[in-house]
Amino acid sequence: MLLRMGGMVEGMAAKATQALLERSARLCAEVIEGDREVDQLEIEIDEMCHSILGRKQPTAVDLRFLVAVMKINSDLERIGDSAVNIAQSVEQINDQPQLKPYIDLPHLSELVQKMVRNSLDAFVRKDAKLATEVCGSDDEVDGLYKQIFRELLTYMIEDPKTVSRALHLLLISRNLERIADHATNIAEDVIYYVEGRDIRHSMAGGGPVSR
Amino acid sequence: MLLRMGGMVEGMAAKATQALLERSARLCAEVIEGDREVDQLEIEIDEMCHSILGRKQPTAVDLRFLVAVMKINSDLERIGDSAVNIAQSVEQINDQPQLKPYIDLPHLSELVQKMVRNSLDAFVRKDAKLATEVCGSDDEVDGLYKQIFRELLTYMIEDPKTVSRALHLLLISRNLERIADHATNIAEDVIYYVEGRDIRHSMAGGGPVSR
Repeated sequence: MLLRMGGMVEGMAAKATQALLERSARLCAEVIEGDREVDQLEIEIDEMCHSILGRKQPTAVDLRFLVAVMKINSDLERIGDSAVNIAQSVEQINDQPQLKPYIDLPHLSELVQKMVRNSLDAFVRKDAKLATEVCGSDDEVDGLYKQIFRELLTYMIEDPKTVSRALHLLLISRNLERIADHATNIAEDVIYYVEGRDIRHSMAGGGPVSR
Repeated sequence: MLLRMGGMVEGMAAKATQALLERSARLCAEVIEGDREVDQLEIEIDEMCHSILGRKQPTAVDLRFLVAVMKINSDLERIGDSAVNIAQSVEQINDQPQLKPYIDLPHLSELVQKMVRNSLDAFVRKDAKLATEVCGSDDEVDGLYKQIFRELLTYMIEDPKTVSRALHLLLISRNLERIADHATNIAEDVIYYVEGRDIRHSMAGGGPVSR
C-alpha cells in the first residue's frame, strides 16, 4: 500500500510539471483530483500500523519497520499536497502567455522525482547506501532552487508585467524543493530502519529548508 | 519534554516576528541558534517513544498517546524549521528600508502562535473541543495569508524596487501559514488520541495547503 501511494504521489509531481510544460488544464485537474485517493490511503495505512502495533506488539527491527512506515506515510501524503499546490499554481499561470522557456524547472522536477523514487527503492531493498545518496542530492536541489529564485527575481524587477507569473513559478519551484525535503526525510527513516541509527540533523539534508 | 519543545518553537515563532518588527539581527540569530536544541529534543523524544513501544508494548489509549507524541514531535520540529526560515528572511529584509508599516503580518503571527499554544493545551487537557477550534482557525489564517499575498503582489507590480523586500515578506507569511498547518495537524492528532477517530481530510484543516 505504501509503495502504491509512493507511485501515486511521484506520478502527481510528474503530471503537475507536465501540466506546466503542455499548458494542460486537464492534467492540473487530474493531479488535484488524485489527492483524494492519497489522503484515503494515508488513513488506511495509519490505521493498519496502529492495529498491528496494538495486536502484535512488535520489537526491534519489526518495530523500526512499522515506525518507518508511519513516518514515510506522512511524508508521502505531504508530497501529494505539494503536487496539488503546484497544479494550482500551474492553473493560474496557464491563463497567461508563457513567461520564458522552461529549462531549469523541468530539470529540478526530474531530480526531485528521482529522489522520491530512490528513497522508496532504498526502503524496499533495505539499501542504506542508496538512502544516503538521496540525502546527498538535496544539496543539488537547493542549489538549483536558488538559481531559479534569482533568475525569477530579475524578471520581476525588470518588468512588473511578469510579477504574477514569476511568483507562481517561484511557488512551483519552492514546492518541488519541499518534495525533495520529504524524500530526504524518507531516506533518513530508511537509514534508521536499516541501521537502527538516527542521522537526522547530522548532515546536509537534515537541517531546515534553506530560505 | 514535548511541552518544553512546544514552548521553545512557539517562542521561536514569536521571536522571529519580533525580529522583523524591531529590525533586530540579534533576535534573528537567537532563533536560528535555538533550532539546534529543538532538533536534539526531537531525536531524544523519538528515541524514548521507540524504547517505550519496544519495552512496554502499550495498547489502546496508551498506544494512541505514544503515536500522538511521535507525530506531534515531528510537527513541532517543522514549526522550528519554519521559524528559522522566517528569521533568515528577516535578516535579508533588515538590510533594506522598511517597505510598509506591518499590520496584518503581526496579526497573522499572533493568530498562528495562539493555534500552536491551544493545540498543545488541548493535548495536555485531552480537550477535543479546543482541538476542533484550532482546526477551525486555519480558515482565518488562510484568508489573512491570501490578503497579505494580494497586497504584496500590488507593491511588486507598482514598484520594481520593492520586489525583493515584498518577496521576503511573502515568504515570511507563507511560513507562518505553514506553522498554522502544523498546529492543525497537532490538533487532529489530539482528537485521534482523545476520541480514537481520525478526522484528517474530513474538514477544512485537513486539505493541502491553499497556497
